[in-house]
Amino acid sequence: MEMNIALLPGDGIGPEVIAQAVKVVKAVGKKFGHTITFKEGLVGACAIDATGDPYPDATHEICAGSDAVLFGAIGDPKYDNDPKAKVRPEQGLLRMRQKLGLFANVRPTFTFPSLVHKSPLKLDRVDGVDLVFFRELTGGVYFGEPRGRNEQGTKAFDTNVYSKEEIVRLARMGFEAAQKRRKLLTCVDKANVMATSRLWRETVQELAPEYPDVKVEYEFVDAVAMRLIQWPKAYDVLITENLFGDILTDEASVISGSMGLMPSASLGSKVKLFEPIHGSYPQAAGKDIANPLGTVLSASMMFDYAFGLAEEAKLISDVVNLSLAEGVVTEDIAEDGKAYKTSEVGDWLAAKIL
Amino acid sequence: MEMNIALLPGDGIGPEVIAQAVKVVKAVGKKFGHTITFKEGLVGACAIDATGDPYPDATHEICAGSDAVLFGAIGDPKYDNDPKAKVRPEQGLLRMRQKLGLFANVRPTFTFPSLVHKSPLKLDRVDGVDLVFFRELTGGVYFGEPRGRNEQGTKAFDTNVYSKEEIVRLARMGFEAAQKRRKLLTCVDKANVMATSRLWRETVQELAPEYPDVKVEYEFVDAVAMRLIQWPKAYDVLITENLFGDILTDEASVISGSMGLMPSASLGSKVKLFEPIHGSYPQAAGKDIANPLGTVLSASMMFDYAFGLAEEAKLISDVVNLSLAEGVVTEDIAEDGKAYKTSEVGDWLAAKIL
Ligand SMILES: CC(C)[C@H](C(=O)O)[C@@H](O)C(=O)O
Ligand SMILES: CC(C)[C@H](C(=O)O)[C@@H](O)C(=O)O
Repeated sequence: MEMNIALLPGDGIGPEVIAQAVKVVKAVGKKFGHTITFKEGLVGACAIDATGDPYPDATHEICAGSDAVLFGAIGDPKYDNDPKAKVRPEQGLLRMRQKLGLFANVRPTFTFPSLVHKSPLKLDRVDGVDLVFFRELTGGVYFGEPRGRNEQGTKAFDTNVYSKEEIVRLARMGFEAAQKRRKLLTCVDKANVMATSRLWRETVQELAPEYPDVKVEYEFVDAVAMRLIQWPKAYDVLITENLFGDILTDEASVISGSMGLMPSASLGSKVKLFEPIHGSYPQAAGKDIANPLGTVLSASMMFDYAFGLAEEAKLISDVVNLSLAEGVVTEDIAEDGKAYKTSEVGDWLAAKIL
Repeated sequence: MEMNIALLPGDGIGPEVIAQAVKVVKAVGKKFGHTITFKEGLVGACAIDATGDPYPDATHEICAGSDAVLFGAIGDPKYDNDPKAKVRPEQGLLRMRQKLGLFANVRPTFTFPSLVHKSPLKLDRVDGVDLVFFRELTGGVYFGEPRGRNEQGTKAFDTNVYSKEEIVRLARMGFEAAQKRRKLLTCVDKANVMATSRLWRETVQELAPEYPDVKVEYEFVDAVAMRLIQWPKAYDVLITENLFGDILTDEASVISGSMGLMPSASLGSKVKLFEPIHGSYPQAAGKDIANPLGTVLSASMMFDYAFGLAEEAKLISDVVNLSLAEGVVTEDIAEDGKAYKTSEVGDWLAAKIL
């Protein structure tokens, strides 16, 4: 198969973890006889530094002309504490999501038996957790207008807005995923307060009869924030709006104790995007210590979701499991001080594949 | 001292837990020679059923004429899954907060040594957690206009809005609390996306020099949702807007393993309100099994925050600790099946006080 993959390493540890995923993807391509072309683009703080724009047109062209995007991480602390900064790395990310039409962010939370003891939660709560969020990614308060300040600058406002179609297309993805899993869908909203949430709930209620095999639950976002910690095994597929999804997927990411390993996919258009859920972790940048497995598993999701190549996807997750079993891992998850470098883990995985 | 206390038992288990707090407050009044007058009002689903209004004017008059309000819980499942319901119990709560000017919700999370093993988190993460949220309670997306639907009903919108003054008055409470505690203040926002959050961050940055002894940290809401579970001991005082506070205070409430015991206070005007953080728990209503200790500890906060009576407040929390130590507790926290009834716990506490 011919595959055009855009690489957006971004900031902080992004370039290092992407480099390992590239080794793995190349190895898979070689083994299975795929022709893979990579094109690299700038995004985030490094793009601002180089061009003044966190998502330059040149980068968009590379992405739009690809089949899939492998994304590292963005963000630099120098932009975080300046509320008046005119350009921020995150704007690049948001513009990219919107221009590429990536309206659904798929975030699984699952456990690795060898890592589950790292969870902050007790073993009986975590062991076997297997849930997935479908977070709406191109709507809500992230993009709603009007937003800004009054003339004197003493009042600020944001608008949360959702159309029925935006909810329907995200919800259908959730229903379909639930049909292939444990057939439980939880619609997360704040319908006791917000008009947008009431439209979410109403729309999901209207769709439910089309998926009679799926049990649908409606829960308020505050209740989910509790139950996710109390008993995460209660959940299968969760669907929610952009801002709630931002908060809850990050909350969920700490449950398994394997945050550095969690992948994600952003879907919705021809081009699909894959990225680890961890951030740019600037303190570790350039030290060859960052955990590349979240990015490698994102590449596994890419073979599956973007190219329909389940065998390739499985091979990658198999070698990741092997690296865990044999302790070929970075310092964040290494036991007994036997840590490997980021680049060594990448080399080892690629060698195992070939 | 003369004390006028409004009782708003509300729905579900509300009346049962309030009844126990009343026993305790009466006992304290008797012991210390205070003249306490109670007036009861309807709020929530029971108020809708009786009057069509979840916060009737008669109830508002009782509250506005009191020094403090003891509140149980509201909410009834019959209103939750009808997104088109015209009147909802929660509207009563929101109207009450706004009309009484209760702009700050104070929500501590702390541990009881005898209960900490009930936490879903591992002991080393939880043991000794002691944090407090100051959640803004009368602004943001809860009250912002415009909100609603377009004409065809296919699009819904909410408005999040904050003025500088709303942020200042809440933030000052947080700074002052931090000065009396471990001197760390965390401002929780989403300043990388939301205009309101940038005003929050900017305003807190402007206030910070007035409190040179307080260290201020700025964190995004998604990061806090993670770190609250990973290492809750990192926090002391957290300040945040209404919606983020709703989600995060509920998340925080499960950390200690003592959710049924967590009290809260809502401040900002002459009349102050005190309520347990748990909900109306309709499945348990009328069974005399609900845990009254969250409401009793809310009454303790009332003596402290509303009347400045620290000794009375301490006596109540002391007898609660005694009930825990002696196992005079309801089934949710009882060990070895030796559970007491809600009313028995209330009687026992009142007897211990006298
Ligand atoms: C960086 C930020 C704008 C972004 C978001 O809020 O969507 C991030 O937190 C995420 O979840 O991808
Ligand atoms: C019932 C609901 C409207 C309310 C809120 O969201 O404020 C509740 O969750 C709370 O936190 O007191």
